[in-house]
Amino acid sequence: MSTGVRRRMGVEERRQQLIGVALELFSRRSPDEVSVDEIASAAGISRPLVYHYFPGKLSLYEAALQRAADDLAGRFVEPHEGPLGARLLRVMRRFFDFVDDHGPGFAALMRGGPAVGSSTTNALIDSVRQAAYDQIMAHLGVTRAPARLELVVRSWISLAESTALIWLDGRRIPRGELETQLVHDFAALAAVSAAYDEETAALIRRALKDEPPTGPFSDLAVRLIALAS
Amino acid sequence: MSTGVRRRMGVEERRQQLIGVALELFSRRSPDEVSVDEIASAAGISRPLVYHYFPGKLSLYEAALQRAADDLAGRFVEPHEGPLGARLLRVMRRFFDFVDDHGPGFAALMRGGPAVGSSTTNALIDSVRQAAYDQIMAHLGVTRAPARLELVVRSWISLAESTALIWLDGRRIPRGELETQLVHDFAALAAVSAAYDEETAALIRRALKDEPPTGPFSDLAVRLIALAS
Repeated sequence: MSTGVRRRMGVEERRQQLIGVALELFSRRSPDEVSVDEIASAAGISRPLVYHYFPGKLSLYEAALQRAADDLAGRFVEPHEGPLGARLLRVMRRFFDFVDDHGPGFAALMRGGPAVGSSTTNALIDSVRQAAYDQIMAHLGVTRAPARLELVVRSWISLAESTALIWLDGRRIPRGELETQLVHDFAALAAVSAAYDEETAALIRRALKDEPPTGPFSDLAVRLIALAS
Repeated sequence: MSTGVRRRMGVEERRQQLIGVALELFSRRSPDEVSVDEIASAAGISRPLVYHYFPGKLSLYEAALQRAADDLAGRFVEPHEGPLGARLLRVMRRFFDFVDDHGPGFAALMRGGPAVGSSTTNALIDSVRQAAYDQIMAHLGVTRAPARLELVVRSWISLAESTALIWLDGRRIPRGELETQLVHDFAALAAVSAAYDEETAALIRRALKDEPPTGPFSDLAVRLIALAS
């Protein structure tokens, strides 16, 4: 009595489906705790069929991670319009959306460890960091960054990662506050470098010349002046 | 014609000697690239004798890492005397001394990867971070930190790590500048949290009440005000 129309998936389509199922599972729990049996069951296929498409759990994990890395890198893309503070805040919102969606998997990956620390996974993490760095430099309008500005941006990216990890560990501060705080932290770290390096100061001054009095950078400046007095 | 007095080392003494030799080698190059043969040769003993004391390279690596972790945690200990900025600057000097001494090994460890990412090594890294956190909180005179202050301190510790890693990658900024910059970064990140959280503001204000006009915190404030005007 079956209609007989249940369509068989093509090879690439099946691979993409498996990657999606695996990413979902690897996001919700530490990759250590996810078995190939579970992935097969969630995809509605047999375990041997999973191995037909992927040689093992590691290669499936790396494929899922590649998809997540592409997704995350895409979230850094932001039109070059309007004040910088507002642009950065929108990117932070999308970054925390990603962290929220992939919490346990993100934490396990960034904390390293035997299940997730391979040269492939490290290279993927580095590629996402580099994508974030390139986007920020493009928004700042800087093509050749002085060493101190490069340090500010790279170290702020690591600050965003660690802030997200600390948030995931208990979620004791609302994420909206942390998104704004990271925008403020960027301004604060840039200001510290600018205070001691004229080249960085000139670049930052130029990038921030269109900040409105209502933006996050101006709000921080007003509050800091009030705090100091 | 030998005098026959070449002393044989006791078990614990030999273990400690091997750990020292291994730490030296694991510090200078990525642990991947260091072989047990090389450790045996540097220690002046046979390869089988190394295995008599340590079951394998990983256990020797972990023992060397434990010694490095104890060393690093010890460098955070600073008398509770004088202005906070100066104390933090002295700790940063000792931290960069450590990073300088153990550069390639520190970088390989902190970047994770198959050779170095195990649950034991992750636990050691976390224990050093916790030691740094406990020291800073003790200097701030805080026993129960509000969530925002905890975030400032933990995220600044990760900033110090990433700044050291970026410094090791090319050493394009003199380390003395980075030591001072990290002290300034601490003040800047604390000020951002204080600007939006009264409890943190009160704790920071109390901790900084004895800062002299010549200290790193005051110098930063003066420069930032000049920059803003």
